[in-house]
Amino acid sequence: MCELLGMSANTPTDLCFSFTGLTQRGGKTGPHKDGWGVAFYEGKGVRMFHDPSPSAESPIAELVQNYPIKSHVALCHIRQANVGSVSLANTHPFVRELWGRYWVFAHNGQVNQFVRRVGIYEPVGDTDSENLFCDLMNHVRQHLPRDAEPQQLAECFVALAQEYAQQGVFNCLLSNGDWLFTFCSTKLACITRRAPFGPAQLADADVTIDFAAETTANDVVTVIATEPLTTDEAWHIDQPGEWKLWQHGEILVQGQVPLTPSRNPV
Amino acid sequence: MCELLGMSANTPTDLCFSFTGLTQRGGKTGPHKDGWGVAFYEGKGVRMFHDPSPSAESPIAELVQNYPIKSHVALCHIRQANVGSVSLANTHPFVRELWGRYWVFAHNGQVNQFVRRVGIYEPVGDTDSENLFCDLMNHVRQHLPRDAEPQQLAECFVALAQEYAQQGVFNCLLSNGDWLFTFCSTKLACITRRAPFGPAQLADADVTIDFAAETTANDVVTVIATEPLTTDEAWHIDQPGEWKLWQHGEILVQGQVPLTPSRNPV
Repeated sequence: MCELLGMSANTPTDLCFSFTGLTQRGGKTGPHKDGWGVAFYEGKGVRMFHDPSPSAESPIAELVQNYPIKSHVALCHIRQANVGSVSLANTHPFVRELWGRYWVFAHNGQVNQFVRRVGIYEPVGDTDSENLFCDLMNHVRQHLPRDAEPQQLAECFVALAQEYAQQGVFNCLLSNGDWLFTFCSTKLACITRRAPFGPAQLADADVTIDFAAETTANDVVTVIATEPLTTDEAWHIDQPGEWKLWQHGEILVQGQVPLTPSRNPV
Repeated sequence: MCELLGMSANTPTDLCFSFTGLTQRGGKTGPHKDGWGVAFYEGKGVRMFHDPSPSAESPIAELVQNYPIKSHVALCHIRQANVGSVSLANTHPFVRELWGRYWVFAHNGQVNQFVRRVGIYEPVGDTDSENLFCDLMNHVRQHLPRDAEPQQLAECFVALAQEYAQQGVFNCLLSNGDWLFTFCSTKLACITRRAPFGPAQLADADVTIDFAAETTANDVVTVIATEPLTTDEAWHIDQPGEWKLWQHGEILVQGQVPLTPSRNPV
């Protein structure tokens, strides 16, 4: 399996603290040593870093930990390979352009023998994750208008995510830089930090931060992760089927759908 | 204008030496301070670094200079903005997926008021360069079969590049990781290094390399750049209309087309 990390903020915010925690799990405090990647949106542009080597030992990860790249939306993934070899082409997050925006996707889970519907987006690597992403993108392009409201997009994402999660495990992060969609199939947690800000201690490294010294009173910053990254804050633990569409650190729309695994007839 | 740097090699090769030379021109020995980007193919995967700040001062560029990422094909661009603001979305190289491969493009020049033909690929930023790239990608997707041979692709690229260059200036690098296409509209130079390897001195920094110590006898490495990057080697200076399709450091097919600027009727 893998671990996800996402951020939605109302002011450009760096991910250094959370990223430092997560990357320890890539070969140090966790077994996710088969590569890592991160995407930072800046306006409509997106800056991505990918590395098929363990994040705990990667000089590129070290740079991202220490060089504050400020963003409204960021998505990160550390990989423990199940489907697909350890290679750059199989390293999340994945990106495709749709309607003049970069759409970025990261997945935690496994959906075996998934059959992608035909469409213009095709996977480059051989993971189930990129296959699922291309299926989703093809569906969105074929069934929604380019001026679809975020709520309408979310409705479509939820239906697809529910379908995927019923065939396997599908925790995901998806964004076009404007909003961030999260879906919990089995495991996802989130926390929204706002004034009054306090200190926090990473679970995976001996690092403490005082958010009060780093923020202004109006900042709203949400962090989403497979498992809580800090030991002294109250994270919300998502339930299976729980989904949220985030914008500027706040929930724009949310809900929960039932996840009944499909069974073969007996 | 901007500067281009490309590499095609028959063995995974790092770009550290040439990249160090080029990035000096991004705010130090040259005026190309409006961002930079680089793409390294590793198999079908591609690793990209983008930064809208000057390459001569960028911590990310410093990492790329010192951390050898080995690749068969690499494309790099440093920007001096003309069309489009200085922003991440306007930072080359640009990437799109086609037929399950990542296609990467970088452009030096300017084609004013270019009107893109309708198709599925759309620009995210507002440069003429990304607009031209999307036009080319739409044309390729619409007119060529997915199993097109590199020679057939090159024929199509040349016809489009000629059309673009007749409306402005269009020096470009284009790759899908398998081959590297280069087109000279006004300015491009290249050098193929093979045994016996010798030393070389960067034109833009006090850096010398002894390629003999870094290579094996079978290595073939071609570097393409807007202007020669070294002072003591014999670079080939491309003529306007000259194009080449590179693979494993060698020319697969090449040619030259006339560039007669189109004139309004008088």
